[in-house]
Amino acid sequence: MGNHFNKEFVKGASFEQLHKLCDEMRERIFTTVSECGGHLSSNLGAVELTVALYRVFDFPKDKIVFDVGHQCYPHKLLSGRAERFSTLRKEGGLSGFPKRSESEFDCYDTGHAGTAVSAALGIAKARDLKGEDFSVIAFVGDGSFNNGLVYEALNSLKILNAPILVILNDNGMSIAPTVGGTHDILSEMNGAGGGKNVALFEQFGIQYLGLYDGNNVEESIHALEKAKGLLKNGSVLLHVHTKKGYGYAFCENAPDVTHGISPTKNVKDEEYSTALGEELTTLAQKNGRIVVITAAMTDSLGLRGFFDKFPERSFDVGICEEHASVLCAAMATEGLKPYYAIYSTFLQRAYDEIIHDVCGQNLPVTFCIDRAGITGADGETHHGVFDLSYLALIPNLTVAIPSCISEFRAMIKWSETFEKPLAIRYPRSGKAVEIEISPIEYGKFDVLHSSMSDITVIAAGERPLSFAKNVLAKRQKEGKDFTLINARFLKPLDEALLSSVSSKYVITIEDNVEIGGLGAAINRFYLNQGKIIRNFAYHDAFIPHGGIVSLSEKFGVSEAEIDEYLEEIYARG
Amino acid sequence: MGNHFNKEFVKGASFEQLHKLCDEMRERIFTTVSECGGHLSSNLGAVELTVALYRVFDFPKDKIVFDVGHQCYPHKLLSGRAERFSTLRKEGGLSGFPKRSESEFDCYDTGHAGTAVSAALGIAKARDLKGEDFSVIAFVGDGSFNNGLVYEALNSLKILNAPILVILNDNGMSIAPTVGGTHDILSEMNGAGGGKNVALFEQFGIQYLGLYDGNNVEESIHALEKAKGLLKNGSVLLHVHTKKGYGYAFCENAPDVTHGISPTKNVKDEEYSTALGEELTTLAQKNGRIVVITAAMTDSLGLRGFFDKFPERSFDVGICEEHASVLCAAMATEGLKPYYAIYSTFLQRAYDEIIHDVCGQNLPVTFCIDRAGITGADGETHHGVFDLSYLALIPNLTVAIPSCISEFRAMIKWSETFEKPLAIRYPRSGKAVEIEISPIEYGKFDVLHSSMSDITVIAAGERPLSFAKNVLAKRQKEGKDFTLINARFLKPLDEALLSSVSSKYVITIEDNVEIGGLGAAINRFYLNQGKIIRNFAYHDAFIPHGGIVSLSEKFGVSEAEIDEYLEEIYARG
Repeated sequence: MGNHFNKEFVKGASFEQLHKLCDEMRERIFTTVSECGGHLSSNLGAVELTVALYRVFDFPKDKIVFDVGHQCYPHKLLSGRAERFSTLRKEGGLSGFPKRSESEFDCYDTGHAGTAVSAALGIAKARDLKGEDFSVIAFVGDGSFNNGLVYEALNSLKILNAPILVILNDNGMSIAPTVGGTHDILSEMNGAGGGKNVALFEQFGIQYLGLYDGNNVEESIHALEKAKGLLKNGSVLLHVHTKKGYGYAFCENAPDVTHGISPTKNVKDEEYSTALGEELTTLAQKNGRIVVITAAMTDSLGLRGFFDKFPERSFDVGICEEHASVLCAAMATEGLKPYYAIYSTFLQRAYDEIIHDVCGQNLPVTFCIDRAGITGADGETHHGVFDLSYLALIPNLTVAIPSCISEFRAMIKWSETFEKPLAIRYPRSGKAVEIEISPIEYGKFDVLHSSMSDITVIAAGERPLSFAKNVLAKRQKEGKDFTLINARFLKPLDEALLSSVSSKYVITIEDNVEIGGLGAAINRFYLNQGKIIRNFAYHDAFIPHGGIVSLSEKFGVSEAEIDEYLEEIYARG
Repeated sequence: MGNHFNKEFVKGASFEQLHKLCDEMRERIFTTVSECGGHLSSNLGAVELTVALYRVFDFPKDKIVFDVGHQCYPHKLLSGRAERFSTLRKEGGLSGFPKRSESEFDCYDTGHAGTAVSAALGIAKARDLKGEDFSVIAFVGDGSFNNGLVYEALNSLKILNAPILVILNDNGMSIAPTVGGTHDILSEMNGAGGGKNVALFEQFGIQYLGLYDGNNVEESIHALEKAKGLLKNGSVLLHVHTKKGYGYAFCENAPDVTHGISPTKNVKDEEYSTALGEELTTLAQKNGRIVVITAAMTDSLGLRGFFDKFPERSFDVGICEEHASVLCAAMATEGLKPYYAIYSTFLQRAYDEIIHDVCGQNLPVTFCIDRAGITGADGETHHGVFDLSYLALIPNLTVAIPSCISEFRAMIKWSETFEKPLAIRYPRSGKAVEIEISPIEYGKFDVLHSSMSDITVIAAGERPLSFAKNVLAKRQKEGKDFTLINARFLKPLDEALLSSVSSKYVITIEDNVEIGGLGAAINRFYLNQGKIIRNFAYHDAFIPHGGIVSLSEKFGVSEAEIDEYLEEIYARG
């Protein structure tokens, strides 16, 4: 099985053979994702369409850009990576996203939404300038069609005048069901009134072709051949309907839950998102000012309960991170108290709006930034290791970092009374603690352990602090010691506390890149004070996919290295 | 004249009186902008429409959000600020943009494009949640309708279901003529085929009303009254045509040149943009890989000549900063050598794409970042004082900072052979030097003056270095000295050179915020080496509008303070 997972087979196979191939691919994807984790339903839904693409086009001469990349597994299976497919998302194994470094069949790296049409246009324009001849395809889900970047690319179709094929893979969902005006337009195309709405795309200068059944391999081949023919007249938008999770009843029925699968779950850990949803729900019961905004991530951010309970104060605006930020700022100008929950890596999309709209106007918007630090199997495009640095430099912004779920709950409670821009960033999962935590105060650190030692460790965030705590426990058994401070705020720093630190050695630990984060702030604070400082932070590099602890160690934040450095200091006496 | 520059007059005036008022307002704007500088043609074109708005709506109870804000002067004149209008854009005077802190008539601060529809929606939703009753208006130019953020907001109209009035002020231009598919759609609406294209907006769930002559005050009043009536059925898009520069023939004929007016010009200074255009043109003559991309800024970035000479390799994609970044990345994957010229403050819009698309794939895209540092009269939203910090933290990115126009030319020449992501950031204007500058080498600083002194000054950028040079010249006359280093690269640092610095005192100077820039990098490099370091950089604050040198002094980078600090060191012996 799987020996015909290659383009040559697809080119020569009978339709019956293709059906069998699709079944085998689907099974391989299901088996692998069950073991390795990954994106399940979106890939199951894209099998037939991908097979059809391989039948009609000639990859890698022809080029395909997958938007986001949650639907590229069938492509990986057919492009010489079937044998390595069992290494999917494992450290050193295949990436879950397209990667130029992995295969010549991957022409453009993705991971964030909305880039594919722009990228395909750029590739096509380069092709035309170089006088080459090949087809360029953007494979885009309907969820991404909410994203402004797609419209910026559509606006450029006439400017660039470089024909591309945009496949709109319409399954009615991103991670969550697709929302908003664009979705309604696409939905109407499914019905009798389709013709009217075709205008939306044709007005941008793209030939519309649809609607086809993307889970029917013959129909998909037919549609792609037709589209290919039309490319000589200019760009084509091929509208295809697929069923997310196609072929597996429980995936079809719960495509959101089966969007992303985690291979193993640490049962001792809890999700920060659960705490977020619970705390905001409690606050919102008494405080009518509170509203919650997400960008197509309601469930994975723990907000389903809040959305169900307060539908009129809950807004999922689709994959529109910039718009969500401005919306929050504007609501805050009218006295509301918006909480914008988002993954760390996607917040990069709203960077200008954080600066220009929220902080520039000094408005009480709270950014709840999930998936901070190394996130593991999704790799380069999904780690949240830049946020402390890019947030710290923004005037008017307060940056808080909880060290456990209990502290996170306390910070959310505290945030209710804080009337300025606030960012709270936290990893996906962690622990709640039994002990009572000290009250959250603006800009105040928490001294977890005082000592007479000449060493102070300042750590921020759950993992860095857990490393520090482990090392402390180990060292205490040897009769050694150090002071341990939980840097609850990166900004403002607790200057009073830092000024009172008399130890000669200061160690900082954070789950963020080494340029511009906690270490940089502490270095600056202690400038010219004669302290010996060591920063543990991630190296200045894009971190690939892998295990969280293993990657953390490889890229500069390792319990063993911290312990080793302490050993050095202890050895000096 | 001007005594009836207030809303009460507008409410009660006859049409004849309104015409006279418009003439007076236009004259006041012209006179003031001629003296203070500012945005001329866009404001001249918006006079009648603004008067009509004041007639039909009741500000500040009703609320208006100006997209970008280049058309808010008539609004300022009618909202109690006529008397202070002569202070426009002067330090301590009126801002050239809407500012909540300036007047209750300004409900939302703007400066960057595309935010108004989102902001209006947020305000309207808050209104509905609070059970209040007022109208919310987004006043948007057609240039902004290229921006993806506007589509993200349109996609939300049905989700938020909070009626707003969007005025599409269509003058066919942003700073440059508007380009792309959206523009064609809008243009067609001007003609007989209009009805067909109305669909674009109605599909998003907004009632279309147009096309009206926005330079005709009666017609505008009529249109706004009609629009106001329709608001009870949901959101309305009112499409109005205006003439940029209306009323002044030379503005109407050259609306791009008269878009922004500088009050005085330092004749000794040259523009970096001129050098950019010339150097790229020279390179492109021999190197067919070079392409140039801008986001609606061709002229102000000095690229008109390049665009004229190489139209097939020049792309103005409209106000689509994100898309432009992805386009560059994609073209680079195909072997082209893209140069993306943009203002520092607008590059914030493309932050995720710099990380995710360009640097994540380690592609040879060169960002030519103009208007870095304090830019002066435009204020908070237009200074380029964050870029060194937010760029330094991105892996794979090289950051270069020329100290004069001659060095900038050399850097552009050098960049041709550099095959990785590169950012070159520079101010608007500066000086060319007569002397030959030393060759640009990757990551190498330039020692401008060596000394046996115990002080080394490391400065980056033209203004910081000019301060340092002035202080040096002054001190040398007194027989004192220090070593002066031009930090041509923020990243990578010239570690070899820095390691060879034996002086005890190190001073850094940059025209960037104090968190995360050059100072932070030098602090980190010299960690634990016993040096006494002092960073001169801008305070952690949003810097208002004013004079460049004056603001620089107020916010932490002052020649006098640098000199004073040196005095302290010299005094220690």
